[in-house]
Amino acid sequence: MATLLVKNIGLLQTPTGNYSHKGAEQGENLKLKDAAIFIEDGIIKEITADGAIPAGGEDADMIVDAEGKLVTPGLVDGHTHMIFGGYRQHEIPMKIKGATYLDILKAGGGILDTVRKTRAASFEELYGKTEGFLDEMLGMGVTTCEAKSGYGLDLETEVKMLEVLKKLNEDHPVDVVTTFMGAHAIPEDYKTMENGADKFIELLCEEMLPYVKEHGLADYADIFCEEGVFDAPQSQKYLEKAKELGFKLRIHADEIEPMGGSVLAGEISAVSAEHLIAIDQAGLESMAKAGVTAMCLPATSFNLGVSFAPARKMIEMGIPVATASDFNPGSCPSLNLQFVMNLACLRYKLLPEEILTAVTINPACALGMGDKVGTLEVGKQGDLVIWDAPDMDFLCYRFGSNLALQTIKKGMLV
Amino acid sequence: MATLLVKNIGLLQTPTGNYSHKGAEQGENLKLKDAAIFIEDGIIKEITADGAIPAGGEDADMIVDAEGKLVTPGLVDGHTHMIFGGYRQHEIPMKIKGATYLDILKAGGGILDTVRKTRAASFEELYGKTEGFLDEMLGMGVTTCEAKSGYGLDLETEVKMLEVLKKLNEDHPVDVVTTFMGAHAIPEDYKTMENGADKFIELLCEEMLPYVKEHGLADYADIFCEEGVFDAPQSQKYLEKAKELGFKLRIHADEIEPMGGSVLAGEISAVSAEHLIAIDQAGLESMAKAGVTAMCLPATSFNLGVSFAPARKMIEMGIPVATASDFNPGSCPSLNLQFVMNLACLRYKLLPEEILTAVTINPACALGMGDKVGTLEVGKQGDLVIWDAPDMDFLCYRFGSNLALQTIKKGMLV
Repeated sequence: MATLLVKNIGLLQTPTGNYSHKGAEQGENLKLKDAAIFIEDGIIKEITADGAIPAGGEDADMIVDAEGKLVTPGLVDGHTHMIFGGYRQHEIPMKIKGATYLDILKAGGGILDTVRKTRAASFEELYGKTEGFLDEMLGMGVTTCEAKSGYGLDLETEVKMLEVLKKLNEDHPVDVVTTFMGAHAIPEDYKTMENGADKFIELLCEEMLPYVKEHGLADYADIFCEEGVFDAPQSQKYLEKAKELGFKLRIHADEIEPMGGSVLAGEISAVSAEHLIAIDQAGLESMAKAGVTAMCLPATSFNLGVSFAPARKMIEMGIPVATASDFNPGSCPSLNLQFVMNLACLRYKLLPEEILTAVTINPACALGMGDKVGTLEVGKQGDLVIWDAPDMDFLCYRFGSNLALQTIKKGMLV
Repeated sequence: MATLLVKNIGLLQTPTGNYSHKGAEQGENLKLKDAAIFIEDGIIKEITADGAIPAGGEDADMIVDAEGKLVTPGLVDGHTHMIFGGYRQHEIPMKIKGATYLDILKAGGGILDTVRKTRAASFEELYGKTEGFLDEMLGMGVTTCEAKSGYGLDLETEVKMLEVLKKLNEDHPVDVVTTFMGAHAIPEDYKTMENGADKFIELLCEEMLPYVKEHGLADYADIFCEEGVFDAPQSQKYLEKAKELGFKLRIHADEIEPMGGSVLAGEISAVSAEHLIAIDQAGLESMAKAGVTAMCLPATSFNLGVSFAPARKMIEMGIPVATASDFNPGSCPSLNLQFVMNLACLRYKLLPEEILTAVTINPACALGMGDKVGTLEVGKQGDLVIWDAPDMDFLCYRFGSNLALQTIKKGMLV
């Protein structure tokens, strides 16, 4: 049995154990001073405070001195598109010179450029690149993440993406929860077809969703419900089929215009709805009623220079709020969840305690991992971060530096 | 003689040698493919392109393979307040709850809190803390920086700060250029005095500036010309005295309101004017006429959630633009100059080539170091960065990660 003691923790801060599968009371944190954690075979066995040392702690295989620093649960990034071919940096000068998204599409850029490059990439290329991202995320304190397909838009590539992610979940310390998002965009050949979007939804429902389910490649299904992509009735058709097949549901909703996506999220009992920058009152009420997690993505708002989701209002309405990176090669080429925490503070005006909930237990619950990760408590995985910070205020304040001193995953220094 | 060869540089990009002491033509970059650099005793001896290897390069004491990546000059951070006691993270929850700057001052926060903690800190404490910042900056690609006093507001502490910086400049690989900024705020005891600001200016002019000059502690003098701090006539008095003593001049101008600071900067031939968010047409014209460098600080605008300096307009008017971190414990607790580059792209709408000029040769010239650093050319210091990026577009695009793979200072791997 491998054992680890982390001692001399100046402040141990964690959301409390008082939560449902729908997330915790936002900002309800437990704070222990001069604490220690004892982990056995990857599972937390005991947590002590006020200078006490857990039983057997001094005989642990490894003892880590936190030197009075802050310890929190490992971070959970609940929304990424982290597997993709190529990059899109050359759109940057075009955008600065005033090119619109349509200009960029015409010049061969945009999401369909990523689709071409993802289709062209081998399993090994995608594996190596995504592994590098997971390594970097781990070094920044992320121990669990979600990752979506959606740059294939054909069965072969979507399956390749999900198989890479499945393999990485097995091989890599980070827990990777996969989502099938074949409905991320309308492929080029369907765009020129009459009723192309409907026909593509048909293909997704009749071929792709059943295949992915049958082969156990994803637990979640997601769709981009937005002007010019899929409308609410198309999204409903897709999500109902996914539900029938046994998928849990997400929906990219109301990023630019309120299209009914967040209302649908509540009606269909999606686990989470994503973006929500333009959510209206009906959407908020539907989500609150059904307990849908709001997956807020402030780094995307930052990068696009648009407004921010009403996260403060969501919390007031009792909607569980999670904040995630949205790492993707187009609208958010950043995987830095610490920066997301800074933005949650600066732009959403969330308090440090609320932010901790939003990057740990709430996304953990939305990934179906709430019983294993997202808080520090006996019986859960020993996933934690020792921060170069005395408290959560400091983590929210001191932006631009990687403050994760040491990430620990299932009781292992990583 | 110690020699270093950096070979297999996919793209070497540098501002050209075609610049005056006032900075380079913004965005005029030289781009060499498949390049190599040979450095001898810290000085660049030869730069080659198209696969050629410099004479003697293969016999260098050390050979670094850049593996096809981007190489640029080491970054120059032209504006920091990086030496200070304490931190001010506990103002974060107060601000989120709606506290004004005045509320925070009343609660013992704000700049005077930093002054108290800086006065209380020992030479060794300040040395160790600032050394840590320099280490981190170096790891992020910064090889030269400016640093200001200004959290002492009394002779003893201002001198202590400058002596720490002087010692760090000797001991640490990063070149540190020092600025005396005793005129950073009005000290508490002068605030309650009648004509306290005038009296403090008197003290600065008669005692502090002469002492700092006599002891060779700073080459530059700087003042905070702003509503509620020092007005334009007070700033003029201070800067004229500093000029008479032989200081080169900077001025924090027009951060919140156009107070005449940028007009004064031109009239008095300051080397640079700082912030300039609220600069008016008269200020722009004055700076353009005199060739004053605009030291733009976008991470501060970001952190405060205010508007951004009109950097694009400045370039159009021929003003040399530099972009710097403004690292300080209040308005910008970030030392990340890569993030400043991202903001220069996203918010100022500068092109990647213009941004390279703004973080290398232009600040180098404003620090009086334009003959030594800021470009890659024969005869200059071998200060460079190998980036985990193929080109400048990528550096501007891929925010949130530290992309500096290897920083080299005076031909040494650091």
